Amino acid sequence: MSLESCVDVLVIGAGPAGLMCANALAMAGVDVRIIDQRPTKLTVGQADGIQSRTIEVWQSYGLAERLIHEGNQVHMSAFYGPNERGEVECTKRERLVTPLTACFPFIITLHQGAIESILLDSMSQHGVKVDQPVAPSAIEVSEDIEELASMSSYPVKITLERLDAVGDAIKTESVRAKFVIGGDGAHSWVRRALNITMDGENTDSIWGVIDVKPDTDLPDIRKLTKIQSAHGTCMVIPREDDIVRLYIQLSGGDLIDPSTGRVDKSRMNPEKLFEVARKIFQPFELRTSTGFEWWTLYTVGQRIASSYSVRERVFIAGDACHTHSPKAGQGMNASMNDSHNLAWKLSQVLRGWASPSLLKTYELERRQFAQDLIAFDKEYSALFCGNPRTVENQNGLSHENFFRASKKFGGFITGLDVQYAPSALVNVKHQGCASNLVIGQRMLPQIFVRAADALPVQIQDMLPADVRFKVLVFMGILTDTQIANVNSLAAQLRKPSSFLQKYAAHGDVSSVFDIITIVAGRKEEASFLDVPLLFRPHWSKGGGHGYETFGIDPAAITFVIVRPDGYVGMVAPSTALDDVDRYFSSFLIPRGL
Amino acid sequence: MSLESCVDVLVIGAGPAGLMCANALAMAGVDVRIIDQRPTKLTVGQADGIQSRTIEVWQSYGLAERLIHEGNQVHMSAFYGPNERGEVECTKRERLVTPLTACFPFIITLHQGAIESILLDSMSQHGVKVDQPVAPSAIEVSEDIEELASMSSYPVKITLERLDAVGDAIKTESVRAKFVIGGDGAHSWVRRALNITMDGENTDSIWGVIDVKPDTDLPDIRKLTKIQSAHGTCMVIPREDDIVRLYIQLSGGDLIDPSTGRVDKSRMNPEKLFEVARKIFQPFELRTSTGFEWWTLYTVGQRIASSYSVRERVFIAGDACHTHSPKAGQGMNASMNDSHNLAWKLSQVLRGWASPSLLKTYELERRQFAQDLIAFDKEYSALFCGNPRTVENQNGLSHENFFRASKKFGGFITGLDVQYAPSALVNVKHQGCASNLVIGQRMLPQIFVRAADALPVQIQDMLPADVRFKVLVFMGILTDTQIANVNSLAAQLRKPSSFLQKYAAHGDVSSVFDIITIVAGRKEEASFLDVPLLFRPHWSKGGGHGYETFGIDPAAITFVIVRPDGYVGMVAPSTALDDVDRYFSSFLIPRGL
Repeated sequence: MSLESCVDVLVIGAGPAGLMCANALAMAGVDVRIIDQRPTKLTVGQADGIQSRTIEVWQSYGLAERLIHEGNQVHMSAFYGPNERGEVECTKRERLVTPLTACFPFIITLHQGAIESILLDSMSQHGVKVDQPVAPSAIEVSEDIEELASMSSYPVKITLERLDAVGDAIKTESVRAKFVIGGDGAHSWVRRALNITMDGENTDSIWGVIDVKPDTDLPDIRKLTKIQSAHGTCMVIPREDDIVRLYIQLSGGDLIDPSTGRVDKSRMNPEKLFEVARKIFQPFELRTSTGFEWWTLYTVGQRIASSYSVRERVFIAGDACHTHSPKAGQGMNASMNDSHNLAWKLSQVLRGWASPSLLKTYELERRQFAQDLIAFDKEYSALFCGNPRTVENQNGLSHENFFRASKKFGGFITGLDVQYAPSALVNVKHQGCASNLVIGQRMLPQIFVRAADALPVQIQDMLPADVRFKVLVFMGILTDTQIANVNSLAAQLRKPSSFLQKYAAHGDVSSVFDIITIVAGRKEEASFLDVPLLFRPHWSKGGGHGYETFGIDPAAITFVIVRPDGYVGMVAPSTALDDVDRYFSSFLIPRGL
Repeated sequence: MSLESCVDVLVIGAGPAGLMCANALAMAGVDVRIIDQRPTKLTVGQADGIQSRTIEVWQSYGLAERLIHEGNQVHMSAFYGPNERGEVECTKRERLVTPLTACFPFIITLHQGAIESILLDSMSQHGVKVDQPVAPSAIEVSEDIEELASMSSYPVKITLERLDAVGDAIKTESVRAKFVIGGDGAHSWVRRALNITMDGENTDSIWGVIDVKPDTDLPDIRKLTKIQSAHGTCMVIPREDDIVRLYIQLSGGDLIDPSTGRVDKSRMNPEKLFEVARKIFQPFELRTSTGFEWWTLYTVGQRIASSYSVRERVFIAGDACHTHSPKAGQGMNASMNDSHNLAWKLSQVLRGWASPSLLKTYELERRQFAQDLIAFDKEYSALFCGNPRTVENQNGLSHENFFRASKKFGGFITGLDVQYAPSALVNVKHQGCASNLVIGQRMLPQIFVRAADALPVQIQDMLPADVRFKVLVFMGILTDTQIANVNSLAAQLRKPSSFLQKYAAHGDVSSVFDIITIVAGRKEEASFLDVPLLFRPHWSKGGGHGYETFGIDPAAITFVIVRPDGYVGMVAPSTALDDVDRYFSSFLIPRGL
């Protein structure tokens, strides 16, 4: 006996990738179900660092406030190396987040369970809870071309097993889904079931991780501190509630089980790990009177899935697609941003707004990112595993190597400079119209003044992850000539052939596009009566130097098209309206009147 | 038959003054009871504007976040006057909050019921709820000198009546209290029962107030807008949920009941009021499709209580002490700040830390404020009641008069520049040591960087209203000489004769004083190991130009003593430790070992 059911999207795995995806889909009103084989949610340990860009992404879902409230902020990094006496001392302190465009110039550290709780609570407000413990046991994707092409079909068949079923309870369920997302981690069942290989290799580097409330006189214990000593290398990550996470490099040999080639956790314990850290800390003291919160061992693998999708009906995301060292705190961030990239595309396709071809951009954009991540990780990990520079070893690594690396990689580590390559979604033709906004990167933050009440508004807060494209119209200075141009533009945009009308059903422009008008000039001289009604749903003044920041000419009228995930998709002068039409026509489906 | 009970503090009246007082006392752990004669809390109307300084005060109780979240922010003001055609047009727009030192450079508008709910919820978290409907019917203050002098006596006797008692239920209660606070409004029962007179007079100006969601094309409807037209004067106050409050000046004569001399509300209705506003708005449209939320009429009285206290055992606060026009949005703010001034003094006296003489400073400080408020109100109201400047009337008032007035009074209206006169609590002897911090005014806001984790911290957030004096030690630049001076200072402060030890029982300095150390220099060079343990409970770096902002010499060591209510009580160089000892000895009680 078996249950049968249908669902638009089935998400497998309730870790960071799965929860981020399911929450975004739930917020978009998509019919989504999420399962996990674990019986309950995480409570301690695992990943814990949220980078600047990921905080912005959380803000776009309205979730950053609680994250910031509950988490610890890390603002500075410090480097310790050995002096002539062989004792470690501080050689450098610097800002942790170097790019100046950060809205949130820090990392938030918080244990993974607390982070997941925020997503679980948000999801549950939209009526979705994790169904657990439930595991998939079979998956099959239809080969029927017509079925695959139709958005009303359910071409993926999955069998689920309820792991807590007792006695005569029905244990097996047959589910038909339009889409399946495998967010089921580094050992992904979905990936293996669909024979997607992982390319790359494991390194022989082994690290121990321990969460502890330390008693120490190391002055930089509440900074992100890297200590390189003759006794090894240790990284200090301050966390919530006075907890500190220590990453400790271990000499590999005796921790590997020769029969499996895998790390054997039974050959280590937290006391031994802490003893290694204690030696690295010398001459600073390191003790604890409260025991260990959590600990683990891991080997560093640097691998990437050969494909992110099967027929754009099954997708994998997060650790299922890529594994790398956790030292730059990327893991959870990469996973969440995979899902952030995918969820709006699925929502637009399921709503019938966009063509299914849009889904191809997920692998295009996120696999390139993972490749960059692994290339970065190799270079960065080499720094960690190298020996420190000492009097005897002048070829060793000094804090200057790290300093240069964090300058070089700052935009990447923080996620702030992640850039998607040109595609249907990223059109760089008119890049010159907004010289400081990089098309393919996230929209830069900037404070504007809202016309109605002079409230200072962060432009990023006007770009929520609500599945709609944002059409920013920079109107410049409203001279009489400019007002005439604005009125003529409004007339063009009201035509049924314009993109605003063509892709919105029944002339309901605001269901698909959010128009935000930004005028240059002083807030004291603002009068919104000069602006045609079409452009008035949101209306801001560029008092805060926004035109200079973005490199936009205040004598022109300029479109900035921001994708639903907050990335700049296109920039165009109002005289190139045809190019904007063409941009949208390459992936949106005309619905018109 | 009658109940009998004892309480340390009985607060009569659960409006802004009473709730602010009862909440502060509840947070301080004082045995407090609050009663109100109304059966339930307010839901609409009444006062609604929270000024910049009051937001800071709320922040010091940890309540600003919710206030900002629920309220509307007003950032700009606008002025409208008649043009040659007799139609009103905008003559000026300007920032509403002009002082540059504002932490919160706006007014929060929110209906009084919602504001009170925040205080009620906070109070209830500390175990105190309003007992209602209960009214006082008799009050008597002992004349016995010994009883009055002793803090263990209960020299005030009050009789309370339970207004909802039915049948045989006990209706009357006899309460003995150490202190009674009358926060029972303009018609204060406490004030009249104790024969405290109100000095001053009513004006003949009558104003109508109406809360409405308007349909209008006035571009400045979401700003604080003053319209002066041939049809009268109207003030627009934007509020939460698209509500707008309109204050409308009325020609008095026909609204007064000749038999009582009081305003007769039955001679007016909201439709008539709205019609007056509609005429003033011309040529802009003003309509509503949702009716009126609340309305009232009032005459402006400008009066002040002849005394604020009876034997420093009964105090009155808020409207019970002072009435004035509501046009500059001061009423609720003055009331809350009365209580903010009184509550910590009561707490210190009840804890046995401070001498009862401290309580005399309440009337000294707050009655002077009320006198200043009424002087300001007279000048400001004259502007409102005057005729506008027109082609025919060149002597009329223009927006320039208002503009000059708001510049002149900006520090007063916002509360940011309110200054308490020299007294036991305000010692100006060493003002020169911190030339930009005005002793007697609130501590200026400034962002510092916390040494341990480089977190940017607002200094005001380190000065919570927790009944303790804050001892800010500005250590300057930690040269070797300075470190030696700091160590010698620490040795002096550890002596039993020093103020830190003398007024704290059992050497528990932090129960009475909070020491905050602020060092000058770059955050990258900070090491807290240089600072003696005594000074380490909180420790900041002055990276954010704090020394310049405050006018403090980074080559010296300077004390800034901040009172529990956030006002600067004293500034002194570390070489004048005796003066600091003398300051505290004038009101604190030695408890020593």
